[in-house]
Order: sequence, then C-alpha cells, then structure tokens
Amino acid sequence: MIHPIILCGGGGTRLWPLSLKVRPKPFLPLTGQTSLFEQATTRVADDSRFADPIIVAGPAHQDLITQQMRGSPHRLIIEPAAKNTAPAIALAATLLEPDDIMLVCPSDHYIAAPKSFCEAAVAAGELAAQDYLTAFGITPERPETGYGYIRQGDALEGGFAIAEFVEKPDLERAQRYLDSGSYSWNGGIFAFRAGAFLAALKEHRPAMAGLVKAAIGGATQDGAVLHPDAQSFSEIDAESVDYAVMENSTRAAMVPASMGWSDIGNWAALHDALVEQDDDAQSGNVTRGDVDLADCEGVLAMSDGPRISAVGLEDVCIIVANGEVLVTTRDGAQKVGKLPGAVNQ
Amino acid sequence: MIHPIILCGGGGTRLWPLSLKVRPKPFLPLTGQTSLFEQATTRVADDSRFADPIIVAGPAHQDLITQQMRGSPHRLIIEPAAKNTAPAIALAATLLEPDDIMLVCPSDHYIAAPKSFCEAAVAAGELAAQDYLTAFGITPERPETGYGYIRQGDALEGGFAIAEFVEKPDLERAQRYLDSGSYSWNGGIFAFRAGAFLAALKEHRPAMAGLVKAAIGGATQDGAVLHPDAQSFSEIDAESVDYAVMENSTRAAMVPASMGWSDIGNWAALHDALVEQDDDAQSGNVTRGDVDLADCEGVLAMSDGPRISAVGLEDVCIIVANGEVLVTTRDGAQKVGKLPGAVNQ
Repeated sequence: MIHPIILCGGGGTRLWPLSLKVRPKPFLPLTGQTSLFEQATTRVADDSRFADPIIVAGPAHQDLITQQMRGSPHRLIIEPAAKNTAPAIALAATLLEPDDIMLVCPSDHYIAAPKSFCEAAVAAGELAAQDYLTAFGITPERPETGYGYIRQGDALEGGFAIAEFVEKPDLERAQRYLDSGSYSWNGGIFAFRAGAFLAALKEHRPAMAGLVKAAIGGATQDGAVLHPDAQSFSEIDAESVDYAVMENSTRAAMVPASMGWSDIGNWAALHDALVEQDDDAQSGNVTRGDVDLADCEGVLAMSDGPRISAVGLEDVCIIVANGEVLVTTRDGAQKVGKLPGAVNQ
Repeated sequence: MIHPIILCGGGGTRLWPLSLKVRPKPFLPLTGQTSLFEQATTRVADDSRFADPIIVAGPAHQDLITQQMRGSPHRLIIEPAAKNTAPAIALAATLLEPDDIMLVCPSDHYIAAPKSFCEAAVAAGELAAQDYLTAFGITPERPETGYGYIRQGDALEGGFAIAEFVEKPDLERAQRYLDSGSYSWNGGIFAFRAGAFLAALKEHRPAMAGLVKAAIGGATQDGAVLHPDAQSFSEIDAESVDYAVMENSTRAAMVPASMGWSDIGNWAALHDALVEQDDDAQSGNVTRGDVDLADCEGVLAMSDGPRISAVGLEDVCIIVANGEVLVTTRDGAQKVGKLPGAVNQ
C-alpha cells in the first residue's frame, strides 16, 4: 500500500484574481467540474493500491478540505505556519511507520492522464521500497523555462538514478535539455520509504528534523486533525524538499512519467491545459462564462459574472473574478502574483 | 451674431460600454470634467459673437440636455425620428430669419483649442454671409482613414472654394492627401446663411425641404421646446448634409481650422486625445479610475468601479463600465459598435 501525502500549501497568487488567499488555487475548479485538490485525492482513491491520504494544509483551508473531501476517510495535519515542502513532508512521514511507502502529491497540479500517474506511482513505490528517494521525472513537451529539470543517470529497475537536479534554465538551455532526451521536468511528486526520508532529513537538515520531531511530540489531536506544536514548528527555516533533501542525496532516483502534467503555474499554463482538453477550441480561444470574442486568437477569457467583450486580441488572458478585472499577455502571466491586487489581499 | 446649431444625434456605439443608448457619447465627460455636449455649448457661449443656441436632439435625451444646459437660455428641437444631419439642420434653419448666420456644431467632437475654433467660426460666418456653404477644413495631423476629406480649390477672402469632397480613403491615399497639403478633414462643422441653406436644400432635395417645412408647420411648441410634426418628419429619407447639399453645391467653401480636433470616434481616438492632453502620461498609458498597470505601453484603461490590473499589454484599450468589460486592440476599436453588447442594448 502507498500512503498518499497531499500537500496544500500553494498560494496560487499568479492565478489571482480567481485564486484568493481565502480560497486558493487547489480548491478551485480550474480545469473542469472538480477542483485540483479533488482531482489529486481522486487519483489516489483506489484502495487496492493506496491507503487513506494524509493531507497537510494551513489552518485557513481546513473547512475547504473537509467540504471537498465529502466524508472520505483521511488524516489532516494543520501546519501552524507555511514552511515550504520539506517540513510538511516530514510531518507526514513522522505519522507513518518507517517502512510505509509515502507518495508526495502537490494538490495544485493538473494531470490529464490519471492512469499513467498511477502506473508511475507504483513504479516509484517499488524504487522507494529500496530506499531510493524517488522523484517523478515528467517527460518534457516543450523547452519550458518555468520548471526545474532532472538529468537521468544510470538505469535502475523501473527507473533511473538522478545524475543532477537543474534550476530553471534559460530558453536556449531548455531547448538543449529537450533535444537531449535525458532531462525531465521535476514535477514535485515523490515516493519515499518514510524511514528513509526521515533518515536523509536528519543527515542533511538535522535542525529541521529535530524541530519537526518536537512539533509532532507536542502536537494535539482533534479527531482526525493533528495540530503540531506551533512554537517548535515556527522555528523551522522554510525550505523545499528539493533543496533540503533530494539534491543532497546520493540515492536520488526517478521514474519517467508522461501523463499530461501541468503545474497550472499561471494563466498561460491554464490556457494551455484547457486548449488541450477542448477539441472544439476555435483559434486557440478558451472562454468560460459570459464572453463575446471578435477577431481573437489564443485568448483565455473567464468571467464569474459580468460579460467580457474582446476585439482583435492575440495571446491575452482576461480574467474577471471576485470583483476584479485582470488583463495580461501570456508572457506577462508570470508577473500577476506581484500585482498590488494579488499582494494586498 | 452667429446662431449655433448643436446637433445631438450621434449614438456613439463604438464607445460602448461607457456610451449607452440611454446616455450616449455627447453627454459623457470623456475628455475632462464636462461632457462633449457641455464643451460644445461652452465654446459658443460668448454672447458678443454667438446668439443662444438651437439644440436638435432625440426625445430620449431631452432630460440630459435640460440638466447639462443648467438653465442657460436655448431653444430645443426634438426630432421625432433620427434622419441624419440634413433634416436636423433644415429644422433649425427654418426657425431662423433668412439672413441669420448659422454655425452647425456636432456635440460629440473634441476640440482642444476652443479659441482657434472661434476664430474659424468668425471666418466661416463671413463666407456664409456671402452665400457660401462653408465647411471647417480641419488641418490633418496624420493619414487618417476614418474621416472624409475636402480638397481646397481657389482662394477666397478668409478661406477657399472647395474643389472636391472625398470619401474615407485607404491608407496609401490618405498619406498622399496628407503630403499634398491641399486636403483637409471634413469635421462636420458648417456655417450657412439660413436662407442660402434652405434654398440649396430646396434645389437639391426638394422632397426633404417640403417635408421639413411641413413638419415645422405642424409643430407644437412646449415652452422653449419645439416638437415638429412626427408624420411629415417620418417620411423624410435620412441623409447627411454632405450628401444632400454640400457635394451638390457650386458654392461650397472652407475655412482652414487647426484646433486639436477629434471626433472621438472610438476608444483609440479617445486614447489619442487624452494622451495629447496629459503631459504626464507614462509610456503612452492613460488610466481613469482604479487601475494598476505593469509593463504596459499605449494602454487606455478606464473603470467606473472594479479595479483593472494589466500586465504586458501594448496598444490595448480596457473599458470597465456599466457592468460590462471591454478589451480591444486599438486596431479593433472600430468594430466595438458591432459587438453583441453594443448592438443589443
């Protein structure tokens, strides 16, 4: 059995004004009828393969999680503060038996082919059982500059050793990675034996490991909800699992995964995912709500109320939500999170 | 004394969603604190030169006119139907003495330099007194394809004979007109001796002249408001004064006028007029209301309420008004009037 760990820490400010602090990206039905969080839990709902999930989230979203889990059994860890992924994963690992296999799943990504995800999860679980710290290596589809890359090394049974983690590249380098065939996107999905993960954390980030242990030791339980000790947890230096553990490990591995993955990192990425979904999309336009387009190409237009009318635009996203109006080029979409409206919520 | 005739027939659907049928373009404060209509009446408020104006408008806008005239003396003719400019001018001419000089002023144009307007009005009035049907020839500032042109002929005292009226040209032809120095924009501003205008109308459009005469004959007066007979007026074929009279006359003249004129024909034209006004406009951006721009150039963003946030746009107009959201390129601005929102008001 694989223990899914669903991480709900993403703020999704680049998807403002639809994504708000009070109801951020994971809990919005961005790509269909259900939210990305609901899709993440549904992907691991097969109880012949997966145990009940452990969800790690901030206190502001406890009600949204309860509501969107609709009574499905789960454990919930409420982080007293946002400390990036390494501490969140460590909290969950501490709740498991050392030999339990955990599958770390971000709750704000989109996966078009859930079956391929499950196959990769099983393969990753098998490597994890051999104490490999195992990442999903997403087969790249374009020279993306917004993602970290993994370079594959020696072949293992069901995967590869990781030769190198690479930071977000520039376009030229990304194109080289794509052409080489030996690089994958780092999708932030990992499989670990719980004991192996905690041992690696203790080796590379002993202070963090100690503070997480103390936070769990001082935790209070409220039904299926665990509240780690806020004092200990607040002393942790926030860090991603990539920096804290993966890049330091000599036993990092990857399983190739080709599953229509997107981090839906900004409006342009959501546009891409929706165009991909929709065979009827005319001229690459995607509309949601009351929208009239004339002479537009590559436009995403979404409204939760007022009509949007647009003329002559190319590669522009128009989002009307929660009383705000956002208009951005696809190229500008990365900067949306820095807008005053997104910052001063 | 010159008798100003203020025409309020313009619908301004290309300035939707700010301009609505119930409160169209002339009555909106587009270029400053006052509406274009108020600016038109203020320009002719000097009672050493101008008599009280005659305003010609549709029944839907009577209240707006009363409100925006703020008690200034005027006469108001309510057209029973919209029949373009020739019948509207003929109604006003019929109320004047034959030797009165009338100055026909659209109420939905912008003039940056009112003093130059007044000088041209006096010059045009002097030609009109010699029975010239006199147009303002606006000195062109760019190869505009959206306006009609006037070619100047022989010099007259204070102006020129008109050699030719030219339809809206394509860009190449517009550039040639601009380079030649002998073409002007036809701004729809005219000076006539009332008797000369009615004589020309009778000569070239006898049916229209007869129906206008009948409409005035059967009119009812309600204080300063005249209601021409609806039956007679409805039988008139709508036609512009350019087609019905000016182009057929052998006594057409023009006075050159350089006065920062714009017909504010669409959002791009409004943008141009506002950039011209505003020495502080950064990167050619103009904003009104709650607007945050990042990496934008040549953007017009106006909101009557909800915040507009925009990233990376170039030469785009964003208008949030009356519960509608319009986003158009400057090039697309001509098509705004055909959008479902503008058509189905």
